[in-house]
Amino acid sequence: MSAECGHLYGLGVGPGDPELLTLKAVRLLRVVPVVAYPAPEHGDSFARSIVAAWIDGHQREIAIRFPMKPGPPPAAIYDAAAAELAAELESGRDVALLCQGDPLFYGSFINVFIRLAGRYRIEIIPGVSSLTAVAAVAAVPLVSRDDTLAVIPATLGEDQIAARLAECDTAAIVKLGRHAAKVRRVLDRLGLLDGAVYVEHATLPTQRVAPLACIAPSEARYFSMVLIARSRRADGRS
Amino acid sequence: MSAECGHLYGLGVGPGDPELLTLKAVRLLRVVPVVAYPAPEHGDSFARSIVAAWIDGHQREIAIRFPMKPGPPPAAIYDAAAAELAAELESGRDVALLCQGDPLFYGSFINVFIRLAGRYRIEIIPGVSSLTAVAAVAAVPLVSRDDTLAVIPATLGEDQIAARLAECDTAAIVKLGRHAAKVRRVLDRLGLLDGAVYVEHATLPTQRVAPLACIAPSEARYFSMVLIARSRRADGRS
Repeated sequence: MSAECGHLYGLGVGPGDPELLTLKAVRLLRVVPVVAYPAPEHGDSFARSIVAAWIDGHQREIAIRFPMKPGPPPAAIYDAAAAELAAELESGRDVALLCQGDPLFYGSFINVFIRLAGRYRIEIIPGVSSLTAVAAVAAVPLVSRDDTLAVIPATLGEDQIAARLAECDTAAIVKLGRHAAKVRRVLDRLGLLDGAVYVEHATLPTQRVAPLACIAPSEARYFSMVLIARSRRADGRS
Repeated sequence: MSAECGHLYGLGVGPGDPELLTLKAVRLLRVVPVVAYPAPEHGDSFARSIVAAWIDGHQREIAIRFPMKPGPPPAAIYDAAAAELAAELESGRDVALLCQGDPLFYGSFINVFIRLAGRYRIEIIPGVSSLTAVAAVAAVPLVSRDDTLAVIPATLGEDQIAARLAECDTAAIVKLGRHAAKVRRVLDRLGLLDGAVYVEHATLPTQRVAPLACIAPSEARYFSMVLIARSRRADGRS
């Protein structure tokens, strides 16, 4: 790392509504010469679409393209992305790596971060996470007082999901997509299906909020989440 | 609820850095005629201090004052606050109730929300939560891939904390304050003390990040959190 190297910013851009960008994210977008973002193999980047109003042609754009298939992307994609960003940083240019939601909450930023940490100056700008956005549009309090919260990927096995559900007051089940049938089954078995709220595309025009019991598993989207709030102790009337 | 009633906005103002306000929060602050916020019995409101630049004299201000003693505030305070806000809403005025961090993540907003929900139009504006802000300043990835996250209040008993720690990859222990000695004891017992990071006043000028093992329990602040990240599977090299 030389004194002339650029800064890498892990820039949380929030859940989808462009108004949920932070002032800091906007300020940085206006000044950085390089903007990088995850994108599908073909087509537009969701993270870029959130900040489109602030991309005005002065920034060099780097799309990090991922194959659209289930499971973790190949490490080679992150290796190549880290190398491409490192070259920009070595040239003294600041780089903003856009992250939908928050960079450290299931963000692909993490995989670039661990490759470049210690070699470059990295600043992480937190964003509104999908977790709090989903709670807001569903009007479901996440946690209050002594409540515990568990965030559980739907990719886990049924017994793992059940064990984690047992140890919390509120749960958020993320990465629902093709695991919706399994999640319904677990919640039904535990008597939790009736209280489960399904949210897709939170804060976007395509947003949908519904009881999970009313969602056919085949309808569940990739960008969706289920909230299960059991605690009702938050009324300040104890 | 009459058609002329005002809107109540639960307005997340982020963890402390005024630049972490969202564009939506700023827009609403500029137009609402009434701004309410939690405050100590004597002295200034932290939530108000975050948005001070946007309070320009046109807003009526309502401070909801809480006694500064341990344990949940008396229900009467929330009853009175809800009644005062309801009177504004009945008069047709929109009200923004400020919430440090996110309104639904341990926010006192929840206690007002459950008293007014169904009677008035309420919109919740998510904010950057203390959880993601703490992770950002500590540069600790919260969750990646199949990781699970547990958010655990330090107010719970030792065995409850230990049980919840057993069922997650990453844990955030909130509300540390006077429970710091107990939390250190639990983490030490489970062999997790060495990886625990203590953060206080995240994103503020008074911010402090240190290994929990280096923090004397008497030093721990109310606005502090401990992160314990066990998973190192997030390197995309599987």
